[in-house]
Amino acid sequence: MLAKKILVSEVGPRDGLQSIDSIMPTEAKKRWIRDEAAAGVPEIEVGSFVPAKLLPQLADTAELVRFARELGSLSVAALVPNLFGAKRAAEAGATKMGLPLSASETHSKANLRRSHDDMFREIADIVDMLHGMPSEQRPHFEVGIATAFGCSIEGVVPEGKVVELAARAISLGADEVGLSDTTGSANPAQVRRLVKLVRDEVGERRLTGVHLHNTRGVGIANALAAIEVGITTIDCSLGGIGGCPAAPGASGNIVTEDLVFMLNSMGYETGIDMHKLLEVRRQVAESLPAEELYGFTAAAGLPLGHTGCKWG
Amino acid sequence: MLAKKILVSEVGPRDGLQSIDSIMPTEAKKRWIRDEAAAGVPEIEVGSFVPAKLLPQLADTAELVRFARELGSLSVAALVPNLFGAKRAAEAGATKMGLPLSASETHSKANLRRSHDDMFREIADIVDMLHGMPSEQRPHFEVGIATAFGCSIEGVVPEGKVVELAARAISLGADEVGLSDTTGSANPAQVRRLVKLVRDEVGERRLTGVHLHNTRGVGIANALAAIEVGITTIDCSLGGIGGCPAAPGASGNIVTEDLVFMLNSMGYETGIDMHKLLEVRRQVAESLPAEELYGFTAAAGLPLGHTGCKWG
Repeated sequence: MLAKKILVSEVGPRDGLQSIDSIMPTEAKKRWIRDEAAAGVPEIEVGSFVPAKLLPQLADTAELVRFARELGSLSVAALVPNLFGAKRAAEAGATKMGLPLSASETHSKANLRRSHDDMFREIADIVDMLHGMPSEQRPHFEVGIATAFGCSIEGVVPEGKVVELAARAISLGADEVGLSDTTGSANPAQVRRLVKLVRDEVGERRLTGVHLHNTRGVGIANALAAIEVGITTIDCSLGGIGGCPAAPGASGNIVTEDLVFMLNSMGYETGIDMHKLLEVRRQVAESLPAEELYGFTAAAGLPLGHTGCKWG
Repeated sequence: MLAKKILVSEVGPRDGLQSIDSIMPTEAKKRWIRDEAAAGVPEIEVGSFVPAKLLPQLADTAELVRFARELGSLSVAALVPNLFGAKRAAEAGATKMGLPLSASETHSKANLRRSHDDMFREIADIVDMLHGMPSEQRPHFEVGIATAFGCSIEGVVPEGKVVELAARAISLGADEVGLSDTTGSANPAQVRRLVKLVRDEVGERRLTGVHLHNTRGVGIANALAAIEVGITTIDCSLGGIGGCPAAPGASGNIVTEDLVFMLNSMGYETGIDMHKLLEVRRQVAESLPAEELYGFTAAAGLPLGHTGCKWG
């Protein structure tokens, strides 16, 4: 019943770096992307096509997309806030683009200054733009439903609202939707329930990934719950850096190293070598001396007898 | 299929305090126990009947057992290393006693200076002693199988060995066995598998609890996996303090606050009020100024709309 392969999607260079004050030099980002790809991570979100004046940390995204595309089979993802960003992502050669659509309209206005209707106009325009491209160059287009599990402004988000927004995004031509626990409010029962509800509405192929935060310490349990109901792509961030500037208290994606430790130990195929991954963490920590990194596996090391890829 | 009630068992005053250098004054421990019981925590392991010269931090265990028994319906647990400790626990009035039996014989010798045969002699003697008591005064006797999921000295621990030790403990008259991830090596697939194997051998009523560490960041995911296969008692420690002095790198029980956040949010009945629990954490942090506390819910607070007992 369960997938044997899980796609671990590193979002640290985007979600991580956008949330901290330190600006990582482009060369350090390139080393991070290159080495984490070499450790076996199959997908990296390398940046965001937002205006550089809003997020100067990510001003080099186009350059990073071009660099990452040279690394071979890596899936190169980027966040796009609107049609203009989507055009830039496509021009740079991104293989995947994610547009955040907040289930909480209040959060959407705070985060992207857009109502739901504004966002659906952008989605329709992006789909038109993509249909104008040769299909082999067309990036995979995912609408990530932010605050899907709760909002720090609106509170509880009705599940029916999330299902409705997902269905509308797919009907407009998005390739896929994702579910994002932007505020780190989710619990495993809710993850299982909402994943099933959305998949029942849009189809299994149209929801394969979740984006979770570890704000209340249960992010990896939520990832486990998602995998149990068929999710095969899990976003995470090396050292757990990241968060959401517009959702106070929402700090920290789930930690790549701890997630991969769990998945590899369970016998899932991630393709990732833990020893190499922990070496990338050491390099990233050196590049961000002012930032606190999270996660436990790095300090504890692997259990005796763990190969880095499997155990027991 | 799944239990609606989960028994959250606080082990911080024992497993937490035995692993740190700070000695908490008896009055501060009493306040902790009293207030955490008042927050709704139904079971607290208040100390360990080891010789005071080995663990001076826990020299007041008998006094704490007597104090905690006055609090009403609280289940008052204590660790006992041998018959002598078990007698002291029974005399003080403990309602539950746990004897650690390490699946790794090397770890058993390092931790308690006892071979497996030595330990089974103690278990038989403790059962004899308990049978000499009036049944209404008899503490529940659990043999906790330590290093059940891996050992920092022996590495991988054969699952057949754990099953064999569990069966032998039950056949000698222990009321129950528990499974302890002393070294924080476990993963959710392994937790599900080993819980099922042991329960198949000894019966469901003879294995209801697990003791997990968050050494590699996946302790709460392991708790979720355990609950999914029918486990109803989860050990944890306020602020995640604790570890195992004889297992290097094995620091930190799973964090009570984050566990309860997850369980309450999922709709399990724990009987615990998160607001009161977080207030206990603040007091414990004040009593242990030199110690780092773990966990994320305390810093983030509850999601908007969470009552402390349920959400959504």
